[in-house]
Amino acid sequence: MKINKDYLNLQESYLFADIAARVRKHKEEHFDADIISLGIGDVTKPLSKPVIDALNLAVADMADAKTFKGYAPDRGYEFLRSKIIENDYKKRGIDLDIDEIFVSDGAKSDCGNIQEIFDKDNVVAVPDPVYPVYADTNIMAGRKLVYLPCLKENGFVPEIPGEKVDIIYLCFPNNPTGMVITIDKLQKFVDYAIKNDAVIIYDAAYEAYITDVTIPHSIYECEGAKRVAIELHSFSKNAGFTGLRLGYSVVPKELKCDGVSLNSLWLRRHSTKYNGAPYIVQRAGEAVYSLEGIKETKRQVSEYMENAKAIYEGLLKMGYEVYGGKNAPYIWLKTPDKMSGWDFFDLLLTKAQVVGTPGEGFGKCGAGFFRLTAFASKENTEKALDRISKL
Amino acid sequence: MKINKDYLNLQESYLFADIAARVRKHKEEHFDADIISLGIGDVTKPLSKPVIDALNLAVADMADAKTFKGYAPDRGYEFLRSKIIENDYKKRGIDLDIDEIFVSDGAKSDCGNIQEIFDKDNVVAVPDPVYPVYADTNIMAGRKLVYLPCLKENGFVPEIPGEKVDIIYLCFPNNPTGMVITIDKLQKFVDYAIKNDAVIIYDAAYEAYITDVTIPHSIYECEGAKRVAIELHSFSKNAGFTGLRLGYSVVPKELKCDGVSLNSLWLRRHSTKYNGAPYIVQRAGEAVYSLEGIKETKRQVSEYMENAKAIYEGLLKMGYEVYGGKNAPYIWLKTPDKMSGWDFFDLLLTKAQVVGTPGEGFGKCGAGFFRLTAFASKENTEKALDRISKL
Repeated sequence: MKINKDYLNLQESYLFADIAARVRKHKEEHFDADIISLGIGDVTKPLSKPVIDALNLAVADMADAKTFKGYAPDRGYEFLRSKIIENDYKKRGIDLDIDEIFVSDGAKSDCGNIQEIFDKDNVVAVPDPVYPVYADTNIMAGRKLVYLPCLKENGFVPEIPGEKVDIIYLCFPNNPTGMVITIDKLQKFVDYAIKNDAVIIYDAAYEAYITDVTIPHSIYECEGAKRVAIELHSFSKNAGFTGLRLGYSVVPKELKCDGVSLNSLWLRRHSTKYNGAPYIVQRAGEAVYSLEGIKETKRQVSEYMENAKAIYEGLLKMGYEVYGGKNAPYIWLKTPDKMSGWDFFDLLLTKAQVVGTPGEGFGKCGAGFFRLTAFASKENTEKALDRISKL
Repeated sequence: MKINKDYLNLQESYLFADIAARVRKHKEEHFDADIISLGIGDVTKPLSKPVIDALNLAVADMADAKTFKGYAPDRGYEFLRSKIIENDYKKRGIDLDIDEIFVSDGAKSDCGNIQEIFDKDNVVAVPDPVYPVYADTNIMAGRKLVYLPCLKENGFVPEIPGEKVDIIYLCFPNNPTGMVITIDKLQKFVDYAIKNDAVIIYDAAYEAYITDVTIPHSIYECEGAKRVAIELHSFSKNAGFTGLRLGYSVVPKELKCDGVSLNSLWLRRHSTKYNGAPYIVQRAGEAVYSLEGIKETKRQVSEYMENAKAIYEGLLKMGYEVYGGKNAPYIWLKTPDKMSGWDFFDLLLTKAQVVGTPGEGFGKCGAGFFRLTAFASKENTEKALDRISKL
């Protein structure tokens, strides 16, 4: 047999696996190391009470033949999809049909799998720096990538492509820069897509962190976006589901290519290669939209955002050049003394026992930058800042 | 943008979605219909007590910051993988390394995704009839398929391919025929793969249903299989996890192609496009291997197998030609009077209110056959048989 040679065009290992290996090595050499991770964007707060209560009830359902649930419906349970429609869209004046929502085991899977429904010969534009999954999964499929630089000079928001591209990945609030996009600029991307018969994959995984009321939470706030955009959502960062696994994708029925509905192509993919998020996890997702759940999510998000503020202001005071952190749980800082991100990574790990993510891991334009996350505990965040201040 | 046109080579809808639509229509027209499903292979028994207990404990872990779990390790938690190694392999005299096990959200995902690590230009051999996922996911990727007929004449076990193929899918105990393969015949496939530089994707989802002690539970019982075979496992049918979602794949480190390890390619795929099965579900999987869990699994499987026996013997007594059902939860019957499987489906649905699966849905060689499953309750199984006897 022959392997998929496109895999050989990838960098050796997935970024976070690479970081984990370096940390593991450091720990092996320093058994007593009290390492604080502000690296991978993993949450640390326990699941909220309404979510735990829902899980317990759902587990009880699975223990009784009368309420036991086997395979879930292909697009996910209606009890969850109706809550998504109501809370994430209708409340924002966006009308979506329940069959335009596809529940999944997380935005990472959706980000990775969505490219499958497109031809190999599309030109794919990804921001640089970028969440590695967009680029890697397209490289694995043998597609040509065009990078859209996100620099200090453009406020880390990419310019509208100067050439014809077919698929554009956008993520706002952004991972890794923590920056946001205005509704006017986002509308320009939508207009470009309409004019150029392109599709936008809009990763809205961090929308819960938006504090500025003028910033869009969904690409469907833009006129015509339903004709050109797929939107991806996560329960990981708002409700702390990184270890529970839940997300959803929106594929509007208006979104067509040569008369073929992308909604039906995605349904075909979803129902052929996937068997649904666990019933108990979908019930947990439903609880995120209960009154108590909404309150708890807001509380968790605002606590993480206090960390973001502490890191942003702390680093600023220490003389660092810092970005993001105001509408996102990520702080993007310029490394001191023109160090590479990996050198700064090693410095932080060995001298401050703090783990972050080197900008290089997110693309060429991330060189000399560094990402810190707001997901540690308040205590650890403060401790990490204190150690960094003594570098 | 351009869509993946290979999707248009698929039949309109996924088999079970098609069946669900027909059943929905029948229900709309007959509100009082007391339909019994022996169709889709979905379990009906509630999760066993040890599994429920493990879920409850794991949910409690998620409620406390000290025991909360975020992202899982790429290959799955060691607490689960070590139990898999010990129980599914070591007890059968098969040595595997813990890093050869990849925990996933189920065998369907693994079946669907495994083809990605192979080149588009491989020739893929799939049995006919076949679980639709093997064929559909390769069609989606634009690969050429070769069908290996499974007929009455060869005991529904395919012949060794006469031509050179690169990837061979095998599933034993088989879905849909319920038939098994002997160790000698399986060894011949392994020998073919070694000789022809081919890889075997061995779906062992139903191995828990094997009652005949001479039948292999794992392809690694064959000599040299670690050099040529990937094995897929499910927790769906043995422990009733269809709605909980858990499975695993085995990719031996010895399995290489042009010096490239398929284990590392699969790790790359797994870590780039997937974020692990939920912690609570992996704990539930661990409980399946506890003493109490093993006992409960055996009990559930043997109760389903009593249904299989009742269907097999009941249909035989009614004069049907029946196969399978002795080492598998599936009964494969020849339709009466040379009816097509879909005609028999409609007859059963409208006259007996029983849902089965037409053989045509599994491939051309399934024409004129019909699959019934043993997963209903004892009561419903008996009721269904009674109704079929009155046709």
